[in-house]
Amino acid sequence: MIFNLEHYIKEKQKLINKYLGIILHQFDKKRELVMAMEHSLMAGGKRLRPILSLASAEICSENFSMLALPACCAIEMIHTYSLIHDDLPAMDNDDLRRGLPTCHKQFSEATAILAGDALLTHAFQIISQPKIVFETYPDVEVRMQLVSKISQAAGIMGMIEGQMLDMQPQIFESGDCLTHLKNMHSLKTGKMITVSIESGAISVGADPADIEHLIDFGDKIGLAFQVVDDILNVEGDPDRMGKSKGSDILNKKITFPLIIGIDASRKFAKDLMDEAIESISSLGEQSTTPLKAIATYIVNRDH
Amino acid sequence: MIFNLEHYIKEKQKLINKYLGIILHQFDKKRELVMAMEHSLMAGGKRLRPILSLASAEICSENFSMLALPACCAIEMIHTYSLIHDDLPAMDNDDLRRGLPTCHKQFSEATAILAGDALLTHAFQIISQPKIVFETYPDVEVRMQLVSKISQAAGIMGMIEGQMLDMQPQIFESGDCLTHLKNMHSLKTGKMITVSIESGAISVGADPADIEHLIDFGDKIGLAFQVVDDILNVEGDPDRMGKSKGSDILNKKITFPLIIGIDASRKFAKDLMDEAIESISSLGEQSTTPLKAIATYIVNRDH
Repeated sequence: MIFNLEHYIKEKQKLINKYLGIILHQFDKKRELVMAMEHSLMAGGKRLRPILSLASAEICSENFSMLALPACCAIEMIHTYSLIHDDLPAMDNDDLRRGLPTCHKQFSEATAILAGDALLTHAFQIISQPKIVFETYPDVEVRMQLVSKISQAAGIMGMIEGQMLDMQPQIFESGDCLTHLKNMHSLKTGKMITVSIESGAISVGADPADIEHLIDFGDKIGLAFQVVDDILNVEGDPDRMGKSKGSDILNKKITFPLIIGIDASRKFAKDLMDEAIESISSLGEQSTTPLKAIATYIVNRDH
Repeated sequence: MIFNLEHYIKEKQKLINKYLGIILHQFDKKRELVMAMEHSLMAGGKRLRPILSLASAEICSENFSMLALPACCAIEMIHTYSLIHDDLPAMDNDDLRRGLPTCHKQFSEATAILAGDALLTHAFQIISQPKIVFETYPDVEVRMQLVSKISQAAGIMGMIEGQMLDMQPQIFESGDCLTHLKNMHSLKTGKMITVSIESGAISVGADPADIEHLIDFGDKIGLAFQVVDDILNVEGDPDRMGKSKGSDILNKKITFPLIIGIDASRKFAKDLMDEAIESISSLGEQSTTPLKAIATYIVNRDH
């Protein structure tokens, strides 16, 4: 049977959207806070992180991958909060996100700040009280590990520090630009992508050695994702990207194409993809097919 | 032996500040993110919430109240994040907090947004990974309960919704103003004060019936705290308050003095204090002395 990635992604998106919908459905949708959360959470995101998490869970446990759903939803909520705050006028000042008005444009800055805070806070509520939403969920020890890993990846030594560095172009004035750029992206995007894959494996009680391979895969594919994002910002179709073309140049962002050029950036992304795929080769041929296909998609996508 | 509240508070503040210092000390203090977190977290807050938590833990377990410290620190970090975000130009637009420049005034709006996000995220890291900081801590089941209770009190049905309501004066245009105001404050301040007291008790494995009495105490003293805050905003000494006098009037905030007058507000606060003290009378005379003294202090304070 030939693996159909498009079908696989659609099926997973449907599953994730179903549970994110159930989470939001607990609250009165006429409240502005809930409307703002829904506006951003249900804006048609790719659901890349939870899909990676589910694909990772499936490698480690064919029958119990549903156990990864609480972490999937928590991670997507944290990802969405980070986009809402990142888009604020004081940060990247973006008007469009996924082709729709950003949260602060649709509502107000104050509401966007609070909707982000609410999504972040509720991510931990989801993991601590999964039974309200999910039929099955990992035991308390595993869930505490998820709280720990996810709060670490999203926090002071992870995503938030990456966002800080992204706003401080002066760090590029000293030392090796490429090292700075890799470090910034490893923190800003990489840690959350890696923890998505790790959380899927942890949720199903995977073997620690297998988890190490998956972390390796995550680190590489996370960086590749960012390199491709930079390339698409220069070359991509703004309608398909859902944001303005060349916005990185306008915002004077340091990018991979700027430092090493477009061709070397493309080769770098391709090499990372190959290394990522290689790092999970020992985990089996068939079960790793979706994850490998996603890695290939990440590098070859056009939006 | 006569109970000395001032001494008690100072001792607890020292203990809490010690552990908050250890938490911050894990990170490079030259990083702007960490400086911004420290600026707000160590700005000389009253530490009311963690002190309430410790006093509650002491009632339920004389010897193991230190088990409440992880929750104490997490709650104080969440409280501080909420102040940082609340002070932002898009929210209350305050220049001063605890007599110092607000986080966005001292650093930048972007840094303040991220420092708040980091404090909120790290609160859950603290509870999930307490061993890095604390000698003793509750077992995993209890800590998961803490994640659940705290994320609930701080979230969509708690503090964040209270902040939303506080920014929507139009809600006062229909219905009973006093009911709206009580509801807003119960969400904005009350839930976090109650969960502080509840967390202290939960951390030491308190009896559920005792916890109920303490929750009742928390609900009442939380509301009393806000009524007194409103009174002090009209009457207080701005130097001692650390913020501008009458700022509620300038910001057109609906307050208890505005709706029921100063004298009735004072009586309301006093009645709540009496009811709060009464609600924990069954928990013993001596062990409840600190909590009762704090309740009295909350209502009689001048800043």
